[in-house]
Amino acid sequence: MQNYKIIVQYDGTKYQGWQIQRSSDQTIQGKISAVLSKMADTQIEVVGSGRTDAGVHALGQVANFFMPEKFSENQIINYLNEYLPEDIAVCKIQKVDERFHARFSCKSKTYRYRIFISNIPNVFERKYYYQYLDAKIDVNLMKNAVKYLIGEHDFKSFCGNTHIKKSTIRTIFSIDIQSTENEIIIDYSGDGFLQNMVRILTGTLIEIGTKQILLDTLPQIITSKNRQLAGFTAPPQGLTLLKVEY
Amino acid sequence: MQNYKIIVQYDGTKYQGWQIQRSSDQTIQGKISAVLSKMADTQIEVVGSGRTDAGVHALGQVANFFMPEKFSENQIINYLNEYLPEDIAVCKIQKVDERFHARFSCKSKTYRYRIFISNIPNVFERKYYYQYLDAKIDVNLMKNAVKYLIGEHDFKSFCGNTHIKKSTIRTIFSIDIQSTENEIIIDYSGDGFLQNMVRILTGTLIEIGTKQILLDTLPQIITSKNRQLAGFTAPPQGLTLLKVEY
Repeated sequence: MQNYKIIVQYDGTKYQGWQIQRSSDQTIQGKISAVLSKMADTQIEVVGSGRTDAGVHALGQVANFFMPEKFSENQIINYLNEYLPEDIAVCKIQKVDERFHARFSCKSKTYRYRIFISNIPNVFERKYYYQYLDAKIDVNLMKNAVKYLIGEHDFKSFCGNTHIKKSTIRTIFSIDIQSTENEIIIDYSGDGFLQNMVRILTGTLIEIGTKQILLDTLPQIITSKNRQLAGFTAPPQGLTLLKVEY
Repeated sequence: MQNYKIIVQYDGTKYQGWQIQRSSDQTIQGKISAVLSKMADTQIEVVGSGRTDAGVHALGQVANFFMPEKFSENQIINYLNEYLPEDIAVCKIQKVDERFHARFSCKSKTYRYRIFISNIPNVFERKYYYQYLDAKIDVNLMKNAVKYLIGEHDFKSFCGNTHIKKSTIRTIFSIDIQSTENEIIIDYSGDGFLQNMVRILTGTLIEIGTKQILLDTLPQIITSKNRQLAGFTAPPQGLTLLKVEY
């Protein structure tokens, strides 16, 4: 069996997220696994770098799988792109060492969150941003909040699963905020992110920008490990997994 | 009654084109007219700058309509954007002179056609380009063809309605072709375009780029007034009405 690494793009609008669920076959992992299993005529398991929530998109999700070595890389990628739904595409495939594991080998992930500030929708990109109507958001306050968040912290306050048993310590390498008149783009890089963490960080930054949360209280919000004190969970459609590094 | 001019954006994917049809309410004109008629509690007719085909998009379609003067422009645009489907948006509204007519007053229209050259789809933009698999297309041949097309000509060879009785003479002001490794973008400006004309011009340019049509025969194709001699009708999803000028 040969281990293959693929880079996957998807428009997550119609899906229940990356991860296979018993109750739904509307998952990206499920769709890819089904096409590969049909090709190889045996069950093929696909491992992703991590879950993405329902409605979240990806430009550079990474996955790996083991297949009998009877097809070329070109045959596999062409078969995948022919039989996958049109909102999922495989951009790249390569053979990798058998020890490569899309989740455990991952060193860094980068997510982008797009906030579109306008009361006029953009019909072409409406599924790929969060439309926010309050133009009085102060981007400088958001930028000032970044220094409290980067580095290694226990991010339990920013975890959507409040019953989590495993470690909630993560390291954020950088948070880069760009803004134009109508848009705020936030790029987060880190060694990993908890469930809903990027969306809760974004909701918190938005509430700091609108002064619903005071900037100076952010260190206490982090140390409290209390989800209630952080901001709202920004909606999934604004979020895209940009890249995963190994 | 007050005459209003609006600028409309739409993702044409799900629609039977701009123009109201007796057999279908899936038209952009029909959707806008229905919302305005509900607001004014009387039938409001909407005039567009021209039809767009089923599946064609618009960034800057222009329309006008007469309404009883009991609402502000803000009220009208907000009502429209609240009740129109999410793939249609009104970007701008202004009061205009009663003589303004979106079709008859039009001086120039600009359309963009996007050709995406890749066997890997782009899941986020797949509804907004024509995916073309032959990478051996010669963009310089296409650019050399432009000189034969600009200016005033009888474009009957490039009209999808072969039984047309009205004049098929139009003036093309410019055709601008930009290309990158994976994309060819063609912008057409003119005083007006016949049914399917931009799509047939695009199909002809593509066939010139792939040498299925020889560049030197283009003047004869124009003078022949024979639809059979021009190229194929490029598919609608690559086409967007960018702007209309008055």
